[in-house]
Amino acid sequence: MATILEDSRFDPDRDLAIVGTNPVKHDGMEKVTGRARFGADFSLPGMLFGRIVRSPHAHAVIRSIDVSKAAAVPGVKAIVTRDDFPDIPAGSPAGDMTRNAMAREKALYDGHPVAAVAATSEAVAKRAARLVEVEYEVLPHVIDPVEAMKPDAPILHDHLRTKGLETEDDRSTNVVERMVTAIGDVGEGFDAADVIVERKFDTRPMHQGYIEPQACIADHSDDDQVYLWCCTQAPFVYRDRLSAILRIDAAKINVQQSELGGGFGGKTGFYAEPIAVLLSQKASRPVKIVMTRNEVFRGTGPVSGTSYSIKMGVTRDGRITAAQGRLIFQTGAFTGSMYFNAPNAMFTRYDLENVHIESFEVVSNRPKVNSFRAPCVPQIVFGVEGVIDELARKIGMDPIDLRLRNAATEGYTTVYGETFGPIGFVETLEAAKKCDHYNAPVPEGQGRGVAAGFWFNRGGETSTSLNIAPDGTVTIITGTADVAGSRISIAMMAAEELGIDVDKVRITMADTNSLGFNRVTAGSRTTYSVGMTVVDNARECIGELCRRAAQIWDVPEDAVVYENGQCRPASQNVGEFDPLSISDITRQTTMSHGAVTASTSMNVTGAGPGFGLHIVDVKVDEETGRADITRYTVVEDAGKAIHPLQVEGQYQGGAVQGIGWALNEEYVYGEDGCLQNASFLDYRMPVTSDVPMIDTVIVEVPNPRHPFGLRGVGEVPVVPTMAAIGNAIGDAIGIRPQSLPMSPPKLLDLIEKAETEPDPAYARNA
Amino acid sequence: MATILEDSRFDPDRDLAIVGTNPVKHDGMEKVTGRARFGADFSLPGMLFGRIVRSPHAHAVIRSIDVSKAAAVPGVKAIVTRDDFPDIPAGSPAGDMTRNAMAREKALYDGHPVAAVAATSEAVAKRAARLVEVEYEVLPHVIDPVEAMKPDAPILHDHLRTKGLETEDDRSTNVVERMVTAIGDVGEGFDAADVIVERKFDTRPMHQGYIEPQACIADHSDDDQVYLWCCTQAPFVYRDRLSAILRIDAAKINVQQSELGGGFGGKTGFYAEPIAVLLSQKASRPVKIVMTRNEVFRGTGPVSGTSYSIKMGVTRDGRITAAQGRLIFQTGAFTGSMYFNAPNAMFTRYDLENVHIESFEVVSNRPKVNSFRAPCVPQIVFGVEGVIDELARKIGMDPIDLRLRNAATEGYTTVYGETFGPIGFVETLEAAKKCDHYNAPVPEGQGRGVAAGFWFNRGGETSTSLNIAPDGTVTIITGTADVAGSRISIAMMAAEELGIDVDKVRITMADTNSLGFNRVTAGSRTTYSVGMTVVDNARECIGELCRRAAQIWDVPEDAVVYENGQCRPASQNVGEFDPLSISDITRQTTMSHGAVTASTSMNVTGAGPGFGLHIVDVKVDEETGRADITRYTVVEDAGKAIHPLQVEGQYQGGAVQGIGWALNEEYVYGEDGCLQNASFLDYRMPVTSDVPMIDTVIVEVPNPRHPFGLRGVGEVPVVPTMAAIGNAIGDAIGIRPQSLPMSPPKLLDLIEKAETEPDPAYARNA
Repeated sequence: MATILEDSRFDPDRDLAIVGTNPVKHDGMEKVTGRARFGADFSLPGMLFGRIVRSPHAHAVIRSIDVSKAAAVPGVKAIVTRDDFPDIPAGSPAGDMTRNAMAREKALYDGHPVAAVAATSEAVAKRAARLVEVEYEVLPHVIDPVEAMKPDAPILHDHLRTKGLETEDDRSTNVVERMVTAIGDVGEGFDAADVIVERKFDTRPMHQGYIEPQACIADHSDDDQVYLWCCTQAPFVYRDRLSAILRIDAAKINVQQSELGGGFGGKTGFYAEPIAVLLSQKASRPVKIVMTRNEVFRGTGPVSGTSYSIKMGVTRDGRITAAQGRLIFQTGAFTGSMYFNAPNAMFTRYDLENVHIESFEVVSNRPKVNSFRAPCVPQIVFGVEGVIDELARKIGMDPIDLRLRNAATEGYTTVYGETFGPIGFVETLEAAKKCDHYNAPVPEGQGRGVAAGFWFNRGGETSTSLNIAPDGTVTIITGTADVAGSRISIAMMAAEELGIDVDKVRITMADTNSLGFNRVTAGSRTTYSVGMTVVDNARECIGELCRRAAQIWDVPEDAVVYENGQCRPASQNVGEFDPLSISDITRQTTMSHGAVTASTSMNVTGAGPGFGLHIVDVKVDEETGRADITRYTVVEDAGKAIHPLQVEGQYQGGAVQGIGWALNEEYVYGEDGCLQNASFLDYRMPVTSDVPMIDTVIVEVPNPRHPFGLRGVGEVPVVPTMAAIGNAIGDAIGIRPQSLPMSPPKLLDLIEKAETEPDPAYARNA
Repeated sequence: MATILEDSRFDPDRDLAIVGTNPVKHDGMEKVTGRARFGADFSLPGMLFGRIVRSPHAHAVIRSIDVSKAAAVPGVKAIVTRDDFPDIPAGSPAGDMTRNAMAREKALYDGHPVAAVAATSEAVAKRAARLVEVEYEVLPHVIDPVEAMKPDAPILHDHLRTKGLETEDDRSTNVVERMVTAIGDVGEGFDAADVIVERKFDTRPMHQGYIEPQACIADHSDDDQVYLWCCTQAPFVYRDRLSAILRIDAAKINVQQSELGGGFGGKTGFYAEPIAVLLSQKASRPVKIVMTRNEVFRGTGPVSGTSYSIKMGVTRDGRITAAQGRLIFQTGAFTGSMYFNAPNAMFTRYDLENVHIESFEVVSNRPKVNSFRAPCVPQIVFGVEGVIDELARKIGMDPIDLRLRNAATEGYTTVYGETFGPIGFVETLEAAKKCDHYNAPVPEGQGRGVAAGFWFNRGGETSTSLNIAPDGTVTIITGTADVAGSRISIAMMAAEELGIDVDKVRITMADTNSLGFNRVTAGSRTTYSVGMTVVDNARECIGELCRRAAQIWDVPEDAVVYENGQCRPASQNVGEFDPLSISDITRQTTMSHGAVTASTSMNVTGAGPGFGLHIVDVKVDEETGRADITRYTVVEDAGKAIHPLQVEGQYQGGAVQGIGWALNEEYVYGEDGCLQNASFLDYRMPVTSDVPMIDTVIVEVPNPRHPFGLRGVGEVPVVPTMAAIGNAIGDAIGIRPQSLPMSPPKLLDLIEKAETEPDPAYARNA
């Protein structure tokens, strides 16, 4: 348990040898050559293949399930249905989890699991799955969250009452919660404004789009121990969820994370895992389930779709006097959208005195939503930064200057009560103003937009162990999944602290039996939190190395100092001793003293907030409505870039995913409530030809709470993307879009509208 | 790094709830149902199959190796020979290791690896292996160690000079080392004796006889990281050996031990592992090698064969006045027999003043020997306890009384310098005297023998981590292989210390990246050493739980005590608080404080010596020479039996393996120096019908250095077996055998000899 780091924070005068350089990633070669082992790249002797039967209805009572024909297929070894799951009351977190994993009373969305088969081959499992007979009573369904809020809407959960909203009657509802977030007095704020803009926006669910579909292998032994291999961002969370819904002690469930072929938040939800465990239990053999892309689309969680309005007021000289929002979040069939992030983050970066946000979370007959980078924030920032863009135009102010005029700085207290320490929003805006892109003229026939974004960044429960082998090389285990290259950054921090070459340090993602609880890899917490624990471990080991050097030299402990990877006498008075490297000491003392190791479990705090500004040039084809991103620059504060190329990769990846969300990605439902585009052919993700080279500017305003000053960098890069693209399109076509995706049909409509009803704020650029 | 246990030793007044009971083993169900994953039960995508080409000659220069025909076989992806191994000078430990793994200048024994092939199937690999063309220059060979010591013997290693023996010329030799171990003055001792007996003995190599042949899978990534799955008693030692002979940083080699289908010391040597790594490197794909039984016999190490003499003197009243030995140990083609254990242990248990032992280790053209329970001791005790038996007969003293008369007790200083603390030899002998077996009359036509044995027991470098999940259940990782059920004993000690049910604790054997160095599982060190670290970890966690309870109650830390798995107020003055269980605390605080965990790396000391006495009844068929064990009792001090059934299993297993060694097991070499009985059909291991029910008496004289008082119990049970059986056979047929195995042909010879040249000390029982 951590002690050493308590008083040890960022030191601006420290010389860094490794942090800030770009060594080759230790897991890079394996990944590019296909040697890395992902979810499906594992097998066990006697393994069966599982196949999930899914509801073809958006909303239906399950009257009965007859598995007799499926069970009679030769090679079928087990079938599970709702009856195999412990009966946990609806409405509790575990009750929702078990019902999302396997429909119980009702199927609540197209693709909702209703049964599963394990057989000796995938073909047999598939054939048998088709023979499972489910008798449904189809109910009216509701897809759109605004429709779902209406009094006469089909009700998904009879037990549901709106949290945070007192009503006179005790009627069931689809509104999970109403939340109000407010500071100051928006009425007074709007009174003080010279210009007020109010706009309505809507956005569609989009999928995280990871390349690797979910895959897992479960082995439930006959004495109730579970081994689970799976691709997950949250092995410990999966363990504890399985423990909760299957009622097995956590210690009896060992989850080994595989390499991850993309997650982006989507592999924090869990789907086939409990089914595979129960199939394995019934069959008494290991069971592998690899989801198809169709299942990923129909059965796993996209981001929340939204419908919302934003109203902001500004004085002529650019002071934002009030900001207001009314937000509706669609959460799919079960609660869990993390929509509370939106009111907390949507305006946060501006030093506002008067804010009022009313937020709703609403269930509907769609798959339960799941996390995506900066959950629930980018889709609202699309509107907020659009309104700010319009305000800047209306008062004739440079859009970055307007943001600078209102930028939050150290000491600002947010709507959620945090008082900022040193932050880099102003520095980020200033860097953006100075960058080449912003100072280049907008190309003929194109539009330019900017938008800003914020993310809290997270810390949380983190456990790691650091072990020094007798030859002085170092292994570190962590239980926080590496979704984006955190391994090399962690190795660099350990190497920096120990004063050794980064090649001498290797990171392994351990199973859940090997460490204390680790929170999910999400919220840009991993490099920050794991780094903290690793530095803590390294310092504990350095202490032990110094004690051993003192013993070897027969001098007092405080006569030894550690510098550049070596123990040295603290002064000439100590005596003449050749410095001892780590391996000098471990080779001599591992057998007599045991290994030099350290282990830390802590709830890491102090993650520094992150801010970014994106600059986008766009060209819209007036014939087809296709928007082409012609230039893109991400400016963002990293605190300190441990591995700058990795940081750039985060910036670029966030922008690319935002480009897809901005321009094309959406779920298309039919009248029957079924998803019509559950494949990469019909669901339009950006491909290479859709994306320009993306320039990056790494701003570094150190986080004083971290030894190397770092801030998380994974969420911010997607936050302002759609807003910046929207603003650029507005600049290009003369009307700022208010609906995502800004797909060709919608842009064609807007281009037509701009001819007849031009928006005076958006003078046509062409 | 351990601190808490320093002053915390055995407390005789402590009430134990779990230690001493017999809960079901947590790994038992998996093992009996075949679900447990052994060495061969693992695979990786794209995996190849490796096959080793072995020398058909006992001693031959390797002139050239032509792999062209083998390489041309479709499906062959890599071939390795000596040229692929780093060239490490001969005579160093790493130099010997690399040469044993793959012959370099010469093949030194029948079965010595000379090349290896990796191919897409086992069949292709086997076919291609036959096409590897090796040009040999066959040299004269030597199998017998006494022959190998002669001046004109064929020399295995030109560089070899005898350590500990000054010679006038600088000639090469096969004698690795001469060692003299002495206290007092044996000349004076023999002068004081009334009866002196001197006998010559010889014993044969026997194989550890594990059911599971060695198996491994190596994955050498293209950037020089190695993953190795294998069945081993020593994952960390394998890692460090691979590091040494392949020159790869230890941190880049991750060894995951599989379940172990028997080891008994034999899986401390390493064989196919470096070959699999190099094949994987060349093929750029994972490579699996599963050895055949033939390869296990020809290519892995049996125990040392020996040739030795023992001389002891005794007074009429039973005081042993002197003990002398001259021992020759055959170590196979390379040094490493651990023969030094023999002089240290052979007489140790008797309070002797005058001892002189001269020991030699000798190479010959046989596979390098390897560990087996109590390495190198049982084969010498066969002679020592035989001489003592004869002395007892000659002075007319009960054989247990003679041993009691000379038994070492607390305060005795051994030949190797250890001064005994509290030990249980006298208690063991007294328990044996009182047991049913010893007090039953010897059945008509049978013989009875007793013999005593000693083993040091070991501690050593040990690392474990203990992690408490949010639900309060406990996982422990250890890197010390579970060869015989240590998992349940470790779980019991943790549960006892934490005051929780043993079912709430699970043990996992971690990979080498996850922990600090762990010494091999051997020498009866595992339950003792791992137990120490686990108790240390549990106490650290209890401290943290109490701190958290104090925070929850808002009372000082010292106002909380931990009892029976709960934190309670230390006194009524603290206030009225309901006790908090582990899960009460972890559920409340894991998210706020991080997990409750502890990790320990230490060199565990204080293992308590172990002593045993075996009583055997035997019936010898005078027609066939077959010896039948009719009754067998093992009496042994366990210090404290953590899991008595497991301890009994150790006692019984040791006796069974000793029965095989005593009666049948031996390697048969032809004139050509090739092994002629490399299969279980021709190598005669004991089967069920050879073995009686074996009774056990567990003596408990606590080891004061361990919190629960335990001593290791894995080695002692084999130490006196052959001696006790030999003494019983002597009693039965009238001549005490001096050569192992005491197989039917030899016994027929002795029976015949007893007719013509009866040994007066051994009055014919029949």
